[in-house]
Amino acid sequence: MKFSIQPALPEDAPIILSLIRELAEFERLLDQVTATEAQLREQLFERRAAEVVLARAGTEVAGFALFFHNFSTFLARPGLYLEDLYVRPSFRGQGCGAALLRYLARLAVERGCGRFEWSVLNWNQRAIDFYERLGAKPLDEWTTYRVSGDALVRLAQS
Amino acid sequence: MKFSIQPALPEDAPIILSLIRELAEFERLLDQVTATEAQLREQLFERRAAEVVLARAGTEVAGFALFFHNFSTFLARPGLYLEDLYVRPSFRGQGCGAALLRYLARLAVERGCGRFEWSVLNWNQRAIDFYERLGAKPLDEWTTYRVSGDALVRLAQS
Repeated sequence: MKFSIQPALPEDAPIILSLIRELAEFERLLDQVTATEAQLREQLFERRAAEVVLARAGTEVAGFALFFHNFSTFLARPGLYLEDLYVRPSFRGQGCGAALLRYLARLAVERGCGRFEWSVLNWNQRAIDFYERLGAKPLDEWTTYRVSGDALVRLAQS
Repeated sequence: MKFSIQPALPEDAPIILSLIRELAEFERLLDQVTATEAQLREQLFERRAAEVVLARAGTEVAGFALFFHNFSTFLARPGLYLEDLYVRPSFRGQGCGAALLRYLARLAVERGCGRFEWSVLNWNQRAIDFYERLGAKPLDEWTTYRVSGDALVRLAQS
């Protein structure tokens, strides 16, 4: 199937929120979603805190990717970090995920990025196999730590 | 010891590069550093691709942190991502790392961030113990994948 990939527009906020909720359900994390359409519109299209591209098959939305730039200190160059990649079930296995990743890899090269990164849930073997076929390498030797919610406020006030 | 923490200025580029090289040496990754002073000046102070704060004891630079904003899709809010934290050996064990982390936690709260994150090398048990005492939790269930160099160009051209 042929997928067309384009940057999302402000009027796409409702479909972006639907896709985020579908992704969260797949990741068994739906209880963590508090995002609203208004917040997405503000953060993505006014503050430009992240960017979204949508993949369409004809007029139907098949999937999306949300990304932003990180930074490599060692290279003193930005990188491209893919926060979320999601393809709707009925469009899977038809090259939509690969098309989104290729689009972002091209964008990373055009923008002078030294690397293109994303994270995957360790139980998602289908995704892991797919990423490794595309040439991605796991950063096994690193673990990410997070402070959020009350712990973040406590650390800020300590 | 009392540490004062302040945003770095363009004239700090040489000391920032020295600190990046010291950190890379500690991480056994010095061969990966290609950053130059001119690149750091451009990326940090013209393009604002990342931010740096310096910790000083009197007039001596004791350590630094380099960070940028990431984005939580589920929260539709930015996060603060600490890319590098480094304290010079002669200033360790005196609260400099904790002072830098507290400063960034305050900044994260002030800027409306939903979370504050960083990554640690799995063999750096001293750092892991320190982060867990501050309330950070490991995101054990995730692995980061990276495409860079020739593999990135290949993916972009595929």
